[in-house]
Amino acid sequence: MRSLVAEFVGTFFLMLAICLAVAGGAGAITPFAVGVMLIVLVYSCGHISGAHFNPVVSLVMWKHGRVTRGECAAYMVSQVLATVAAAIVATMLHGRGAVAAMTFPGLGAALASEILGTFALLWVILNVAVARATQGNSYFGLAIGLTVAACASIFGDFSGGVFNPAVAIGGAVFGLFRWSDLWVHVVGALVGALAAAGAFRLTDRGR
Amino acid sequence: MRSLVAEFVGTFFLMLAICLAVAGGAGAITPFAVGVMLIVLVYSCGHISGAHFNPVVSLVMWKHGRVTRGECAAYMVSQVLATVAAAIVATMLHGRGAVAAMTFPGLGAALASEILGTFALLWVILNVAVARATQGNSYFGLAIGLTVAACASIFGDFSGGVFNPAVAIGGAVFGLFRWSDLWVHVVGALVGALAAAGAFRLTDRGR
Amino acid sequence: MRSLVAEFVGTFFLMLAICLAVAGGAGAITPFAVGVMLIVLVYSCGHISGAHFNPVVSLVMWKHGRVTRGECAAYMVSQVLATVAAAIVATMLHGRGAVAAMTFPGLGAALASEILGTFALLWVILNVAVARATQGNSYFGLAIGLTVAACASIFGDFSGGVFNPAVAIGGAVFGLFRWSDLWVHVVGALVGALAAAGAFRLTDRGR
Amino acid sequence: MRSLVAEFVGTFFLMLAICLAVAGGAGAITPFAVGVMLIVLVYSCGHISGAHFNPVVSLVMWKHGRVTRGECAAYMVSQVLATVAAAIVATMLHGRGAVAAMTFPGLGAALASEILGTFALLWVILNVAVARATQGNSYFGLAIGLTVAACASIFGDFSGGVFNPAVAIGGAVFGLFRWSDLWVHVVGALVGALAAAGAFRLTDRGR
Repeated sequence: MRSLVAEFVGTFFLMLAICLAVAGGAGAITPFAVGVMLIVLVYSCGHISGAHFNPVVSLVMWKHGRVTRGECAAYMVSQVLATVAAAIVATMLHGRGAVAAMTFPGLGAALASEILGTFALLWVILNVAVARATQGNSYFGLAIGLTVAACASIFGDFSGGVFNPAVAIGGAVFGLFRWSDLWVHVVGALVGALAAAGAFRLTDRGR
Repeated sequence: MRSLVAEFVGTFFLMLAICLAVAGGAGAITPFAVGVMLIVLVYSCGHISGAHFNPVVSLVMWKHGRVTRGECAAYMVSQVLATVAAAIVATMLHGRGAVAAMTFPGLGAALASEILGTFALLWVILNVAVARATQGNSYFGLAIGLTVAACASIFGDFSGGVFNPAVAIGGAVFGLFRWSDLWVHVVGALVGALAAAGAFRLTDRGR
Repeated sequence: MRSLVAEFVGTFFLMLAICLAVAGGAGAITPFAVGVMLIVLVYSCGHISGAHFNPVVSLVMWKHGRVTRGECAAYMVSQVLATVAAAIVATMLHGRGAVAAMTFPGLGAALASEILGTFALLWVILNVAVARATQGNSYFGLAIGLTVAACASIFGDFSGGVFNPAVAIGGAVFGLFRWSDLWVHVVGALVGALAAAGAFRLTDRGR
Repeated sequence: MRSLVAEFVGTFFLMLAICLAVAGGAGAITPFAVGVMLIVLVYSCGHISGAHFNPVVSLVMWKHGRVTRGECAAYMVSQVLATVAAAIVATMLHGRGAVAAMTFPGLGAALASEILGTFALLWVILNVAVARATQGNSYFGLAIGLTVAACASIFGDFSGGVFNPAVAIGGAVFGLFRWSDLWVHVVGALVGALAAAGAFRLTDRGR
């Protein structure tokens, strides 16, 4: 229960930062504002819930025994509720029509971007928060937040740089993305996360 | 006494950074300049006074037994003196009329922004500087400063992104805000801080 | 083998970030997007392979006994394969002709920039990741990534700010640099790295 | 001797970053490029020489028994040689006349800016690198570099944001400042540093 509150709080502010930064026209700074918000949310929620804020992270954490199957499902529900709530709050703040839904320049590029970015995100998470060799480090929050900043910065033009199915849903509610494009973000995140889990298994020295 | 000097120094430079960054036209960079200043002030004053720099932080720290009621009151006086002093210095540097007082686009949005931003700030402070699970960490200053950077970046358009009654007073002295809007920042900060303290009680595993 | 996978993953995403940030027109933010990506790659790969991502780093690490001669050679192959793969992926995402090959404003300035930047990079790496006095620190990834951010920011106009022969090759494949200029990046990186290794020997208190 | 090499290397790259960032027209990003460079130089030189890079820092460190009077003098010579060398290299890279010497908008504001900024810098240095309560922390480099970033960002318009007599000399050589204004930077830095040392004595719990 404590974990679900933390997942809600963290995912809510992550989604709110994305909506408000994009609608506020922060431009090239947007990925950094969002990444910085994620850094502080990971540092403030990590010890409570693990700070997943992302269904594919919860999925991979379940595969690595960090949460049970039931917890994993509850996390995902909490995350989606949080992004929908944040999208509603952002709509109340900015009014309807504050943003135009993104049109991907190409479907292949969008899918590839989501796969590559989610791969990078999960690769970093697994290596700084699961790998035994880096246990107890103090840079996990910085590393995870900055990964999203860097990846959103370089992949944003192709797919919005989401890497997170819950954020994709909240983004569609707020109007950042078209509902018909939701599958791209979901499939991309799933494929990228599973590939990263595979790469991690290949390189990890055991836990 | 040592603590009050540190609170004065820290709150003075925090307020000075806000006034000079806004008046200097730093634009989208402003929240990051201020957040970066807060990072270094927390790291340099934390071991002396706890680095509150904010009356609602002192209030919550008093509720968590970190300062006595008398210290809490003295901290608040020191913080307000510091922001007023910084506003005067900034006025001497930039001259009167360097900034136009902000007009909130909407009262509800302004109040909501201050509540949400202060909630995030106190949530982070409680979890990285009070929670037993993260005791002794080295990222507390980074997390607290970056929270203000991210929140000022996304909430700035609605309320100025203050989250701090002492800064609201100094801001009114410098001319960033109208005195008639002061209650928005004060009420918003109080509500947000108390809500965060409640959420923290819900999720904390005890101290 | 685990190391070679990590070197491939890290160097691939480093090169991808460079290509996409430049082609995406991130402007003055580009060096920071790349530096931030490098921070997270060092933190996520350091414990597996040492996170060289750069042939001259591998060379210097071999001289300091961190890898064998065979490993050093294999690392270099993995690094070059990774930058070529990233350049191909970036070309698929952006299409041919997304960037115009850089023309150095002056050959001497380009060479000096690569020497100075690589000196700074290796000086930092040796002092935060090899020196006994800083052993076990948690800032190594931050320091290394930020060195590239700062140096690419100040030397970029003169030489592109590469400091890495593998990145120079990938950059030529993507079209950032002319093949005829490759020797500048290779010679500059070699000279800068060897000079830094010499300066390190002068200042190090032994291992 | 080891220390003097490290002081030279660190001060050289700090000065070079300032000259090239200003001449390269990095704009609002300039203070952050310089601050980031300082972060990595402090982390890479701190264990060798203490990473002063600034005559008034050496002065205060001598007063706190960190270096002898002779070392202090040698450090200052090394620092000034380094900034002059960096200014010459920057002139060779950019050519003469790449920058116009700054004209202070007001003498009082310039002096106040240098005093306030140097106070903040020394306050942070003393509290994160000398105070017993923060001994062994890992954030000292981050805190010191970010202080310069924040202070250069907010005080830059008034005085250039130097806070360092050696950098003022190098800046005059490169053409950033007029030789006739040098005393402002020197007096401002001295007054600010001594005031910070006094404030530190007031708040420090002993070493």
